[in-house]
Amino acid sequence: MMDIAVCGAFADEQVARLREGAGDIPVRLMEAESDCDSAIVFGNPEPGKVAANPNLRWLQLESVGFGEYAGLDWKRGHGETLITNLAGFFADPVAESALAGILALYRGIDRLVLLQAGKQWLGDPLRTHLRVLRGARVVLFGYGAINRRLAELLAPFGCAITPITRDGIAGLDKALAEADLVVCTAPATPATSGLFDAVRLANLPPGAIFCNFGRGSILEEDALADALERGRLGGAVIDVTRDEPLPAGHRFWTCPNIILTQHSGGGTTDELDRKIGVFLANLACFRAGTPLEGIVDFSRGY
Amino acid sequence: MMDIAVCGAFADEQVARLREGAGDIPVRLMEAESDCDSAIVFGNPEPGKVAANPNLRWLQLESVGFGEYAGLDWKRGHGETLITNLAGFFADPVAESALAGILALYRGIDRLVLLQAGKQWLGDPLRTHLRVLRGARVVLFGYGAINRRLAELLAPFGCAITPITRDGIAGLDKALAEADLVVCTAPATPATSGLFDAVRLANLPPGAIFCNFGRGSILEEDALADALERGRLGGAVIDVTRDEPLPAGHRFWTCPNIILTQHSGGGTTDELDRKIGVFLANLACFRAGTPLEGIVDFSRGY
Repeated sequence: MMDIAVCGAFADEQVARLREGAGDIPVRLMEAESDCDSAIVFGNPEPGKVAANPNLRWLQLESVGFGEYAGLDWKRGHGETLITNLAGFFADPVAESALAGILALYRGIDRLVLLQAGKQWLGDPLRTHLRVLRGARVVLFGYGAINRRLAELLAPFGCAITPITRDGIAGLDKALAEADLVVCTAPATPATSGLFDAVRLANLPPGAIFCNFGRGSILEEDALADALERGRLGGAVIDVTRDEPLPAGHRFWTCPNIILTQHSGGGTTDELDRKIGVFLANLACFRAGTPLEGIVDFSRGY
Repeated sequence: MMDIAVCGAFADEQVARLREGAGDIPVRLMEAESDCDSAIVFGNPEPGKVAANPNLRWLQLESVGFGEYAGLDWKRGHGETLITNLAGFFADPVAESALAGILALYRGIDRLVLLQAGKQWLGDPLRTHLRVLRGARVVLFGYGAINRRLAELLAPFGCAITPITRDGIAGLDKALAEADLVVCTAPATPATSGLFDAVRLANLPPGAIFCNFGRGSILEEDALADALERGRLGGAVIDVTRDEPLPAGHRFWTCPNIILTQHSGGGTTDELDRKIGVFLANLACFRAGTPLEGIVDFSRGY
């Protein structure tokens, strides 16, 4: 008898919705670190528990990233096992958070918030420090759902946009040399690890803004901290870091002109409800034998 | 002999540019409070000095607002005197500042900046407090250059936009009752004075966001402070206030979820250079006897 294990901080009404959607298939709650022998799992349990599940036929992750699960030998242990992720799910909120951070730097919102906290009126002298995003030259490194959505949001700003895909990394350095703004949303792969190092950041024009909404491993963090402290770069918006939470002594806490969004970029009030919606839609496909959305291709690494 | 008086904090190279652009017409620098008998004036001198200028033929203001000058009896004293303002000049920066403030509230940038100042990592619990702007119902009160530009910037967000012009104020209350976001850019006129009072703000749905980039007189500030402190409204972005600088004891300093942009919305690094460009372009028209840009119509009040 097939059953479904769901792993997450679901409210009662969300469990009820899952049970209603599952119909005659029993739904049980599991902890991330629990043993599990369910054929269908929704959530991100510990990878070891996933690997040890003899009955698993389909794992619906509640994330886009699946690096923790990539080491499991799926082909051998689970010949027919499917893994689906939430590719594209976070495009709207992350693209909006990226634009929010970028516009905050251009229009001084970060500085204004701190002035306000100190009940300090600066007024007119602020004005000459502000820039407009209109017409900026933008490099979008990684061109999946998030940066494609960001390109849509940037369209009315009349920016000159250069998307760089994984096949176009050879053109990255030339593009960076003429960029006012770089937004990384690329996944963590061997090709992107440490890609934005001191040499590559030095290739950006003075005053450029660097944003990372991909993975922390893409960036050499000390190199960015150096460039911000020296004033060579104009600012940074950083959603992802190598260690999260950011360690207490990390230089990013005190760098000038950096906005740390604390890996909140994908968040929305209805995030978990929307994830349940994706799972239930895929469940209907699974039962009908039709293709699921978001099937992970481990060979691509993302 | 006609001459030009320029009033502003011009750098040497800006004065040189003005002189080069003026050709054979002498350019002299004036203080705002100085007597002036020049035929052409660029800048915002004291209104009394403008009224007392017997030779004035054209005043190019360096602002959009001209309320201080509206009381002068132009028709009687200066039958042929033209006044031009910078209508449309600030559309890009103000629309970008408005969107920056709005996205900051939707995506938690204000809160993140304060967390960062305290070196505090909150991370995941932030996510469920964040909203997306996509699909929001937006009322644009005042539909001149700034809100038209904002409507362009909002286009890819798929917002339902209701513009309210001065002829459409009768429809304001109905529109407010269904608005997630209101952005005011209307000028200070008798019709807009105190328009956003407690009754009208109470008409907004719970959690709505109110923005004022028009004039401080449009808003009853205590009513907004009440609504924010009670949590009835979701936030506010306020560029203009009745008193600027904002007085030390003003409630806005400590209201929750308010972003004060300190009348910086129109600012850019090249603001004064661009203003000089507008003046010189109008000067060419003035000398050629062709129509100037931005001629003020006192009968409309803006």
